[in-house]
Amino acid sequence: RLASTAATPFASSRVTAVLGAQWGDEGKGKLADVLAEDYDVVGRFNGGANAGHTVIADGVKYAFHLLPCGLVYPHTLNILGNGTVIHLPSMFDELAQLDGTSVSWEGRLKLSNRAHLLFDYHQIIDGVLEERRGAGKSLGTTKKGIGPAYASKALRLGIRVGDLVDFDDFAAKFRSAVDSHQKMYGFDYGIDDELERYRAFADILTNGDMIVDSVAYVNQAYNDGKRIILEGANAALLDLDYGTYPFVTSSPTTVGGVCTGLGLAPGKIECTVGVVKAYTTRVGWGPFPTELTDVNAGGERAEGAPGADIGAHLQSVGGEIGVTTGRKRRCGWLDIPLLQYSNMVNGYSAVNVTKLDVLDDLETIKIGVAYRDSTTGETLAPGHMPSTIAELARVEVVYEEVPGWQSSTQGITEWAELPPNAQAYIQRMEDLLEVPMTWIGTGPGRDEMVIKPHA
Amino acid sequence: RLASTAATPFASSRVTAVLGAQWGDEGKGKLADVLAEDYDVVGRFNGGANAGHTVIADGVKYAFHLLPCGLVYPHTLNILGNGTVIHLPSMFDELAQLDGTSVSWEGRLKLSNRAHLLFDYHQIIDGVLEERRGAGKSLGTTKKGIGPAYASKALRLGIRVGDLVDFDDFAAKFRSAVDSHQKMYGFDYGIDDELERYRAFADILTNGDMIVDSVAYVNQAYNDGKRIILEGANAALLDLDYGTYPFVTSSPTTVGGVCTGLGLAPGKIECTVGVVKAYTTRVGWGPFPTELTDVNAGGERAEGAPGADIGAHLQSVGGEIGVTTGRKRRCGWLDIPLLQYSNMVNGYSAVNVTKLDVLDDLETIKIGVAYRDSTTGETLAPGHMPSTIAELARVEVVYEEVPGWQSSTQGITEWAELPPNAQAYIQRMEDLLEVPMTWIGTGPGRDEMVIKPHA
Ligand SMILES: Nc1nc2c(ncn2[C@@H]2O[C@H](COP(=O)(O)OP(=O)(O)O)[C@@H](O)[C@H]2O)c(=O)[nH]1
Ligand SMILES: Nc1nc2c(ncn2[C@@H]2O[C@H](COP(=O)(O)OP(=O)(O)O)[C@@H](O)[C@H]2O)c(=O)[nH]1
Repeated sequence: RLASTAATPFASSRVTAVLGAQWGDEGKGKLADVLAEDYDVVGRFNGGANAGHTVIADGVKYAFHLLPCGLVYPHTLNILGNGTVIHLPSMFDELAQLDGTSVSWEGRLKLSNRAHLLFDYHQIIDGVLEERRGAGKSLGTTKKGIGPAYASKALRLGIRVGDLVDFDDFAAKFRSAVDSHQKMYGFDYGIDDELERYRAFADILTNGDMIVDSVAYVNQAYNDGKRIILEGANAALLDLDYGTYPFVTSSPTTVGGVCTGLGLAPGKIECTVGVVKAYTTRVGWGPFPTELTDVNAGGERAEGAPGADIGAHLQSVGGEIGVTTGRKRRCGWLDIPLLQYSNMVNGYSAVNVTKLDVLDDLETIKIGVAYRDSTTGETLAPGHMPSTIAELARVEVVYEEVPGWQSSTQGITEWAELPPNAQAYIQRMEDLLEVPMTWIGTGPGRDEMVIKPHA
Repeated sequence: RLASTAATPFASSRVTAVLGAQWGDEGKGKLADVLAEDYDVVGRFNGGANAGHTVIADGVKYAFHLLPCGLVYPHTLNILGNGTVIHLPSMFDELAQLDGTSVSWEGRLKLSNRAHLLFDYHQIIDGVLEERRGAGKSLGTTKKGIGPAYASKALRLGIRVGDLVDFDDFAAKFRSAVDSHQKMYGFDYGIDDELERYRAFADILTNGDMIVDSVAYVNQAYNDGKRIILEGANAALLDLDYGTYPFVTSSPTTVGGVCTGLGLAPGKIECTVGVVKAYTTRVGWGPFPTELTDVNAGGERAEGAPGADIGAHLQSVGGEIGVTTGRKRRCGWLDIPLLQYSNMVNGYSAVNVTKLDVLDDLETIKIGVAYRDSTTGETLAPGHMPSTIAELARVEVVYEEVPGWQSSTQGITEWAELPPNAQAYIQRMEDLLEVPMTWIGTGPGRDEMVIKPHA
């Protein structure tokens, strides 16, 4: 239990949010998983089955996309908050992984009555929209219907989990919603079969007492002195508002989502952890200032551009390949301006640096410390992040070069055992961001984590 | 300056949010206006031109729907945050009211580069959707295009204020967005004329340096020690997530919106004021547990139902008629369960009770203190709010009756001068909600306000 909160200044935090600080795939899952041991309630507040953690428990591997990772710990209660969008067929598929294992989820999974249902037609709409957008204009969405589900919510054409309690009412709403969406997107849909399926889901949910007034539920847990941990899906630069729009997801991935998507007031959020990979990766298109990989590796830099070999190295050593998609992730140096911006929005209490070990072999390491506008030559003030794709594509990065440590940090658990240059790298991150780098990942395993002593 | 923050425990609050705590029209405008005198920055974080405050300054009346009310004070900077949706023609119309007055807005209004533009086609879509919904299924929206604009944002078909900086790029995005929306809603649109109009808007905005990176801007102001006040539009029970869906607006009206819509992290929000009318009103359809008015007055209670005369009295004395729509507001008793729920979500530091004077003539006053499920007979625990229209329609209200004061409180500014029964009413609210009732409105005027001494 070295890596838990117990050894940190956050040992008594009643509400802790774990948020991706870059473009996703930072390894949030591991920290949320490790911390869950010390918490009573694990909640999701945003997104849907587009999250994707691999959780290993008792030697069995579980792929969770929608379910809170806490479900594998028998002592936890798990909540899908009002801000999530729930595709029930996917949820029950994920739960089916637990059949016949030692993990029993009954009574430990609660769905907010205010969460919106994501239906198959939302996934169909994702396809229609990609097609209408035309070749070369793909947003590279996961086609899981997330955007269309949040759009239905905004148009007040959404149907919520609580609507399932009165099935006749639900059926009427469902028919009317399908009709409205067909008028916009012209698709065929087997309404009656779908209703049959949902009748069965509704029975399981109501018989299992799985639908709750999550706002009251979570706040009651808080008042009862329970410890609550929130798992953010996606990451700051994919936030609907703060991300590099339109290459974003359709929900808040930043800390405000804890309030809008779970009903905890700001004063209750005690600790916000930003999860930061020791370098930067990005999936799909869109500008990426510190990028090293080239077009062949799925990036946007010219083939064979300087540093592409280092990008390829990070990609292979870091295993930077999408779990479900098999798509290679673009890789680049650590981007401090991006993190300053993400810290401004989220107000991190602490950072979890992940994958430090992936840098082990490098002779020198660069840190992007500032953005410069390539047309005006001006350096952007810390915290300023270009809002348009065109402006972001125009920035040049000012780098600092630091020496690598060229020895293995894999599996190290004590700060004192990290090579001096690795300590210096982490310390430089801390100085540049002015946030304590509390947890440092040195490998994929749960124990492969250093807790940095606080001054 | 009696009514300002200066005489309250919040005198040093650097960031204060003023939020509607019920179904809207609580009189948020007056408090925001009064407090603005003491603040440097006034921001909006949600919604669009659907807010509606009347601000009186130097004897001139201004109707602001989109603009922050602080604009009438020369010392303030005013921001439309990233979470707002901006219809530029409406914005410039509102600004035109200030032409030839002593109020100069130049240099004092900033638009977030990340705020989405609301176009005329979003308003057209609102109409198409109401039509498709069919007779009797109206949501009673203001048809200002708010829902469709947030839907475009979620579908990543939105265009943001920052896109106007590169007009050719904007024009291409605009053509493509119109095309996408026409495929869904089949309407005609004069693209070229609209582009001409927007070219002129873009010139004004860029020449006037009105487009800013609002996240950095607001946080810089905070770091510079400036005081920031946020004006919420709409109210808690109209929140997209926490309101009585689908009779809601399409943005967060609760405190999380300050984070998602302006980029201030939770730890920076020092004071959250809930604005609570001394009774309850609601516009349009949807369940309303403490309602007194009947069908003739725009309500849902049977004609001539008991108490309808009191409802009609509140309506006329309180001037409960929509400013733009002329629609009568439904009136009812104070609803504590609703406020307990809204307080749970928002975490009020203090409450501003408004329109206490409207109750002056009543012999006895009822306070709704609990909800009871009429089918099971069970009392709902405090903070529990039914999530569906059907469940909310089913609640019975448990009332407490208190004696009225039957004398005028109009214009009173001192707590000691309030009639004992009026003091007792406020004190009862405070005890039931466990939040200090800091400001108490005793009339529409800026000076007609009591500050309740803190124990
Ligand atoms: N080498 C190494 N791998 C890590 C570390 N922390 C997490 N990982 C692995 O990195 C991957 C994280 O990616 P992913 O699960 O997509 O990220 P998430 O969605 O943010 O949790 C997982 O395979 C983890 O096992 C670390 O410190 N070192
Ligand atoms: N009688 C009375 N009227 C008030 C008081 N406070 C505000 N008002 C008036 O009530 C109305 C507030 O409604 P409105 O502007 O729709 O509310 P808002 O959108 O929440 O600001 C305005 O006409 C105010 O002048 C008060 O304490 N007493």
